[in-house]
Amino acid sequence: MEPPDSNKKTFTHVRDGQPSMVDITPKSSGRRIAVAEARVDLGAEILAGLANNDLRGPKGPVFQTAIIAGTMAVKKTSELIPFCHPLALEGCDFRIVPEGTGVRIRCEVSTTGKTGVEMEAMTGASVAALTVYDMCKAMNKAIRIHDLRLISKTGGKSGDYHADPS
Amino acid sequence: MEPPDSNKKTFTHVRDGQPSMVDITPKSSGRRIAVAEARVDLGAEILAGLANNDLRGPKGPVFQTAIIAGTMAVKKTSELIPFCHPLALEGCDFRIVPEGTGVRIRCEVSTTGKTGVEMEAMTGASVAALTVYDMCKAMNKAIRIHDLRLISKTGGKSGDYHADPS
Amino acid sequence: MEPPDSNKKTFTHVRDGQPSMVDITPKSSGRRIAVAEARVDLGAEILAGLANNDLRGPKGPVFQTAIIAGTMAVKKTSELIPFCHPLALEGCDFRIVPEGTGVRIRCEVSTTGKTGVEMEAMTGASVAALTVYDMCKAMNKAIRIHDLRLISKTGGKSGDYHADPS
Amino acid sequence: MEPPDSNKKTFTHVRDGQPSMVDITPKSSGRRIAVAEARVDLGAEILAGLANNDLRGPKGPVFQTAIIAGTMAVKKTSELIPFCHPLALEGCDFRIVPEGTGVRIRCEVSTTGKTGVEMEAMTGASVAALTVYDMCKAMNKAIRIHDLRLISKTGGKSGDYHADPS
Amino acid sequence: MEPPDSNKKTFTHVRDGQPSMVDITPKSSGRRIAVAEARVDLGAEILAGLANNDLRGPKGPVFQTAIIAGTMAVKKTSELIPFCHPLALEGCDFRIVPEGTGVRIRCEVSTTGKTGVEMEAMTGASVAALTVYDMCKAMNKAIRIHDLRLISKTGGKSGDYHADPS
Amino acid sequence: MEPPDSNKKTFTHVRDGQPSMVDITPKSSGRRIAVAEARVDLGAEILAGLANNDLRGPKGPVFQTAIIAGTMAVKKTSELIPFCHPLALEGCDFRIVPEGTGVRIRCEVSTTGKTGVEMEAMTGASVAALTVYDMCKAMNKAIRIHDLRLISKTGGKSGDYHADPS
Repeated sequence: MEPPDSNKKTFTHVRDGQPSMVDITPKSSGRRIAVAEARVDLGAEILAGLANNDLRGPKGPVFQTAIIAGTMAVKKTSELIPFCHPLALEGCDFRIVPEGTGVRIRCEVSTTGKTGVEMEAMTGASVAALTVYDMCKAMNKAIRIHDLRLISKTGGKSGDYHADPS
Repeated sequence: MEPPDSNKKTFTHVRDGQPSMVDITPKSSGRRIAVAEARVDLGAEILAGLANNDLRGPKGPVFQTAIIAGTMAVKKTSELIPFCHPLALEGCDFRIVPEGTGVRIRCEVSTTGKTGVEMEAMTGASVAALTVYDMCKAMNKAIRIHDLRLISKTGGKSGDYHADPS
Repeated sequence: MEPPDSNKKTFTHVRDGQPSMVDITPKSSGRRIAVAEARVDLGAEILAGLANNDLRGPKGPVFQTAIIAGTMAVKKTSELIPFCHPLALEGCDFRIVPEGTGVRIRCEVSTTGKTGVEMEAMTGASVAALTVYDMCKAMNKAIRIHDLRLISKTGGKSGDYHADPS
Repeated sequence: MEPPDSNKKTFTHVRDGQPSMVDITPKSSGRRIAVAEARVDLGAEILAGLANNDLRGPKGPVFQTAIIAGTMAVKKTSELIPFCHPLALEGCDFRIVPEGTGVRIRCEVSTTGKTGVEMEAMTGASVAALTVYDMCKAMNKAIRIHDLRLISKTGGKSGDYHADPS
Repeated sequence: MEPPDSNKKTFTHVRDGQPSMVDITPKSSGRRIAVAEARVDLGAEILAGLANNDLRGPKGPVFQTAIIAGTMAVKKTSELIPFCHPLALEGCDFRIVPEGTGVRIRCEVSTTGKTGVEMEAMTGASVAALTVYDMCKAMNKAIRIHDLRLISKTGGKSGDYHADPS
Repeated sequence: MEPPDSNKKTFTHVRDGQPSMVDITPKSSGRRIAVAEARVDLGAEILAGLANNDLRGPKGPVFQTAIIAGTMAVKKTSELIPFCHPLALEGCDFRIVPEGTGVRIRCEVSTTGKTGVEMEAMTGASVAALTVYDMCKAMNKAIRIHDLRLISKTGGKSGDYHADPS
């Protein structure tokens, strides 16, 4: 039987027809980790430019700018998403790897607190992907960001989550 | 012959191996419009909840919160994307419509200035999509944001762009 | 006899003639709640427009935009008020109800920490009221915001406070 | 006869039941000035402390902190009010004077642009008033902010506005 | 022999050739204090203007604006320095004193948490110095900020630090 | 005879004993460029680590993070310095070069507008220097930032400025 306090099957941010922040007062504090990913389909030409291992090539600046923008966006999540709680962040790690005709961006965020860091990981992956887009858009306006999704979430009462592989 | 000042086939934000802002001083000011879209695949259950036309249903709060978050994010674009220029914004319009098992979010941004508003439209669509995710994630953690891309761009020396329909 | 560490009767933010942040190191952490209210006198014409219960009427967008702006402002309080401490927020709840020829906005904020959330509640009520003003000002520039005040404050060493009813 | 594009009698920020930014593209650029005021009722005891002309008294820090916070808030207006346009600010002037059992705060903002600065002046007066509250609240929690309103507005197609004296 | 977990002799923010946030999860929470200083060489003429003890002289506004700007910058440190962790701040104290042909600015920051407040103190001293520069630059563009450095740091596993006197 | 409107010999941000923003309404718009520099004395050991040209060495991440943080800080100048006007930025260029036992950071900012970009260049150089400090501080807490100053300023009525070489 599903417990009555389950938050799984309702619009938790809507109350009496109005948008609303969830009250996390009764939650217990604990270690929480979330991982999100995004893919950016850049096309073969840009990818070739990025894969070049020349010291003066663009891969360093493009990837590093994306990592820094993503990290700073993780810290801004509660400013961007109206009903996210501000929280202390303990770790934030980005990995960007070439894949197919684009790159895959992975953002892992961790904290110790009363609420999870799903939105922080999703926001970080999203802004890192937008930054890759920005730095490559002069070469190809058809770049597409896709498969932005939660990969895993651990910690917290609602249970761990691991996405199906794809 | 391609003109020497074309910005089409280089990493415009990389100079001498370092990331760098493009100098827009020589550009001429003009009317510029960009449209971006994102899709959020919510699954049938959530979509049914949102499609409900009951006055007290969640559709109003979810869509309106996404529009407001997206509009505020458009204004924050140059804070999020390291080499975006701050600019005056004249118009910002969102449309969110159900489509398939999710929603399609369209963000149109306009300005009069020396640089385009592609990144503003992309950032707006992205944050509106993240906000829809946030307000629905308690019901389904497998929500996926995809097809975030530029739909059109008009104004500016580099010519207009219209994405292939998909 | 009043204890020497009482903070009740001095300008706590002024030291040696200079403005100064209060050091909250010695305070103990605890549950703290504050409620603030503001009234916005809109005039009968606007109120009639808002009271209309039509699904397509402006009440939904006006109230929801005010709630969202107020919630985001609560999170920005320490950026706006120079000597406010940044803090983790656990709950933030808005109620907007018609009253007389205007609306009454109530903002309740809660946290667990070393300092209270009075300024957060006051800032939230204030920005929600300004947002109502913004969305109605084309119809009446004589809108007035008044009676912005603390309604109650609980938790913390200085004792609970409950405003006189008015 | 009133022109059909008049923005005087509608909820300009609501379109098709959704909140929306006004498109200022067709507006013409010009000099625009707005003045707003707020009153803060502090009570006689605090006012006596502030009226003291001693060099080391609290009046300097309290008033100056309010002016600085108000000025910085004017610059943040488009971050706080969801559908305000970001704009270049040319002047921002505060006056704080004792009046009755409190202070009257006057904020004047000017720009050259396509949209007015009403919300900037209102936001500046509001945050200056909140800062006075913050710096005095340890002495009196019953402080009340009232009569926050637009005093005048000049420039722009919709005509000048001057509030009735009160 | 140096312990393997020492963070003293490596670029802690670089991993596998990419910039990276340090994961503070394993650190223990504790009381941490940092003090930083900066000097601003203003020249004799400006200093004479600031030293004037006249009630209407510029010293009050210049010093108080610098203190307020510095305090607000301390709270913004994690927004400015890409790999700084956001943290709760408990105390922040500024002292500005004339010295030689300029002023010495001292910023002390304290918190209880998992990571130190060195960067907060350094950022606060820096922005207070920039504000003094801004308010005096019309009189002398050759103003120089120098000797911005950490004075002391206490708390945390890596041990206390006290700068050599200079 | 000095013209009465000269802004050279007064505290332009102080009026009637209160801090105050300068009204730039009467200024004419024009092309304005400012260059500022800072030096960071890192010590020989860290400099050796940064000078290493190995692809996986720390020089890339340290310099690139500083450039990105500096660029983002230039855009935040009017949020940090209380009486700076918000302005549109057209170009922002950083150069970081080893010099002596540290690095020299040069920040050039350009705009077309009514007010100069001195504070933007100074703030950019300052935050880039703080970021270098942050990324190296685990190896040496005695790092010192010095010689932060304006190198040149062109455009605007008050005339060009070029610092004495040093």
